[in-house]
Amino acid sequence: MIHRCAAVVLLFAAVYSFEYEELKQYVDSHEGDYIKALREWVAIESDSSDATKRGELHQMMEVVGEKLRKLGGKVELVDIGTQQLPDGETLPLPKVVTAEFVDDGGNKSTVCVYGHVDVQPAKKEDGWSTDPYNLTDINGNLYGRGASDNKAPVLAWIHAVEAYKALNMELPVNVKFLIEGMEETGSNGLDAMVESKKDSFFSDVDYIIISDCGWLSRRPALTYGTRGNCYFFAEVEGPKQDLHSGVYGGTVIEPMTDLIGILDSLISPSGKILVPGIREAVAHFSDEEWRMYHDIQFDVDSYRAKIGVDRLMYNNKVELLAHRWRHPTVSIHGIEGAFSAPGTKTVIPAKVIGKFSIRQVPDMEPATVEKQVTEYLQSVFAKRKSPNKLKVKMVIGAKPWLADTKRALYEAGKAAVKRVFNVDPDLIREGGTIPVARTLEDVTHKEIIMLPIGGFDDGLHSQNEKMSRFNYIEGTKLFISYLHEVSQIKKN
Amino acid sequence: MIHRCAAVVLLFAAVYSFEYEELKQYVDSHEGDYIKALREWVAIESDSSDATKRGELHQMMEVVGEKLRKLGGKVELVDIGTQQLPDGETLPLPKVVTAEFVDDGGNKSTVCVYGHVDVQPAKKEDGWSTDPYNLTDINGNLYGRGASDNKAPVLAWIHAVEAYKALNMELPVNVKFLIEGMEETGSNGLDAMVESKKDSFFSDVDYIIISDCGWLSRRPALTYGTRGNCYFFAEVEGPKQDLHSGVYGGTVIEPMTDLIGILDSLISPSGKILVPGIREAVAHFSDEEWRMYHDIQFDVDSYRAKIGVDRLMYNNKVELLAHRWRHPTVSIHGIEGAFSAPGTKTVIPAKVIGKFSIRQVPDMEPATVEKQVTEYLQSVFAKRKSPNKLKVKMVIGAKPWLADTKRALYEAGKAAVKRVFNVDPDLIREGGTIPVARTLEDVTHKEIIMLPIGGFDDGLHSQNEKMSRFNYIEGTKLFISYLHEVSQIKKN
Repeated sequence: MIHRCAAVVLLFAAVYSFEYEELKQYVDSHEGDYIKALREWVAIESDSSDATKRGELHQMMEVVGEKLRKLGGKVELVDIGTQQLPDGETLPLPKVVTAEFVDDGGNKSTVCVYGHVDVQPAKKEDGWSTDPYNLTDINGNLYGRGASDNKAPVLAWIHAVEAYKALNMELPVNVKFLIEGMEETGSNGLDAMVESKKDSFFSDVDYIIISDCGWLSRRPALTYGTRGNCYFFAEVEGPKQDLHSGVYGGTVIEPMTDLIGILDSLISPSGKILVPGIREAVAHFSDEEWRMYHDIQFDVDSYRAKIGVDRLMYNNKVELLAHRWRHPTVSIHGIEGAFSAPGTKTVIPAKVIGKFSIRQVPDMEPATVEKQVTEYLQSVFAKRKSPNKLKVKMVIGAKPWLADTKRALYEAGKAAVKRVFNVDPDLIREGGTIPVARTLEDVTHKEIIMLPIGGFDDGLHSQNEKMSRFNYIEGTKLFISYLHEVSQIKKN
Repeated sequence: MIHRCAAVVLLFAAVYSFEYEELKQYVDSHEGDYIKALREWVAIESDSSDATKRGELHQMMEVVGEKLRKLGGKVELVDIGTQQLPDGETLPLPKVVTAEFVDDGGNKSTVCVYGHVDVQPAKKEDGWSTDPYNLTDINGNLYGRGASDNKAPVLAWIHAVEAYKALNMELPVNVKFLIEGMEETGSNGLDAMVESKKDSFFSDVDYIIISDCGWLSRRPALTYGTRGNCYFFAEVEGPKQDLHSGVYGGTVIEPMTDLIGILDSLISPSGKILVPGIREAVAHFSDEEWRMYHDIQFDVDSYRAKIGVDRLMYNNKVELLAHRWRHPTVSIHGIEGAFSAPGTKTVIPAKVIGKFSIRQVPDMEPATVEKQVTEYLQSVFAKRKSPNKLKVKMVIGAKPWLADTKRALYEAGKAAVKRVFNVDPDLIREGGTIPVARTLEDVTHKEIIMLPIGGFDDGLHSQNEKMSRFNYIEGTKLFISYLHEVSQIKKN
């Protein structure tokens, strides 16, 4: 029995190796088309944070739907309602695109690929070397806003399906797509949509795949965790309106001085979070974890050089990775209401809002963090004896996510990486937050894998974001191969 | 001898009283015209800080020149060159308007009235109740950007001259005008222009009058001092570019954290300046000064209520006025380079510039302050052991100004106030800076008086700036009367 079984497995493996060679050649011979497709997508300024670009965002979703429809998918553009802007205006949300490539009678597993096609804001004046909405190839890197986050990975998934179809090969698993257009501003409307499709679109989904992240180095990686995010507004309000600092300076207790004072109490110069209770809540760093981190290929010096600083917060690889992935941190992003333009202005701002976030890790709880931060800042503020008013509010409370890398879904990922890149992947975590992972897990109770193809130096959310040709094309092959590997998982 | 002299004086006084009644009636009967003129000036968006409004600023200077020309003045629009914007663009500066109403053969004194017709930025969205560029009369207050600072006072001076002319009365003194269009952004180009006209336009000027300030309460005031201003940029630079706070947070020492830390070291919660040496340099507060302050009509409670805070930095009148006028203070205006928009952005800003100013008083020296602040901040920063770079730069170093209120110029002011308002003026100082006062004094060596007609609650530089009809119209009478009083000063 074992012999026959093993022989069959070997046979299937041999057949797939043959098929894979064909698929691989197909991908290589279509590199120009793939780049053209990415150029078209990048040219659409689908900035979800800018209400004036909502038209382009709607257009983007239509383009995605049309591309999937042409491939033969059963496509739906799901209306997820409207959003209300701070000024009271109501704006229609971009539709969510769902697509299904499903053999109705079959017994195949079904994967659902999640991605997004909205982007962060970008302007040439921010310091881009090229027009952010005109994909520009420089030495094999494709520069453009959204290239890596997340347009090329979404296209790579579509091209993976396309390759099977073009070669008249059966898809090894059923493939569904869930593509949204509000990820960069908090996936507005998505949670409710996922909840409403729990018993329809998601009912036959076995696995969820997210490729909205990147490798740690030049070595491919599988991602098994993300940090959460508790984003705070600390608002200090004083005078009725802005005052002239010459005329009034010295007579009023300025909201800016108070705000600077409380923001300065959050974190020490060496990076220690000063809010009581936060560090104590963090999960114990196990020896096994330490060994995993230790074995990861990661060059601290090139990471440092890439960022462009003389010294990092930690110079030891394990400590650095631990503080990137599994320890919380405080970042102060900026102040709303104060003078922020170039030049000089002699103003005493009347109301200022400090914005900071605490990256959330197991076993911290957002609700507890909100309480800890609010109480601490109010106590620091009380000591100042200021007549101004402080309001602390947590505006985002996104939980972290963590997967078990010993499950079959990750083993499939390791096999696919091995096939395409001939190396074992790093098992890594992500410092950032992908809240949809938690939502999809909580609502569908399906297993999730994060399968990144972005490079470690893609500059997400920054100037000069890029996707390399190599990662884009080899990434497409990885997805092709992964569909096969998932089909080998024995269904429960 | 004494008898005859006194009789002549009395006779002249009686004649002027008669003349003044006529002038006063003229002003009262032209209130509508004066408001129409102010409406026309306010409608011109002469914002000197906004390069896109430069056309309107040029137009504003033309309108001023034309109005003075029509009155019969010898008008010149003086070209003062160009300015370079931070982006390298060169922009022509608005011309400076000079006008002369001078009897060539006479032995009259000559006054030069300084004013400006550029304004601070204003947008309805900033929180204005009315369109800032459409003068709106609500309960006798004329709301509009630049109404009080400084368009109505400039118009009041022109109308004062106009009244004499319209009634065919000889001007009691020669009157010159010096009207600029760059005051709100630092009087770019004016110093050189004043220097170049030292031996021509300014050669026969005896006194300089500035009405670019306001009263302290409802009681008229003469202003005898202003604070200077040392404006600083503290720039902290770290990574090569902005980073995603999820991806990089916890691994880099963030420039924002460093900047918040050093800004927090400038001033204590109770308003004490923590930069060593600054407080020690301040001139001794004499008993005589204390008595002057004590006698000034100033209601701390209504000042507090107007600002809209529960408590001021000092609740004692003398202490409050002293810290407004003759003690230095630190104001933190804002941060350039950080996130300042509404909403959330998970960014680690790569380079941030903290902007703060120290109001400068006798006997502080700007050059010394620059050294003290720079050394102190660098030492605070050094203790943080940050790999980021700190640059401290003083971008404005404007000296304070102080006059002797016992001089004839101020006695003339007291007499004019007495005639128009039937009260003695408060002798006050200004918390803000009027750098041109120092320039005019240093270059021309002429005496200066500040003769305000703005109200204490005009909201300069703020939302809902206004000029009251009362101050505008009675202020015009004050200027008319002041020209007469100056003519009574015995020439040296």
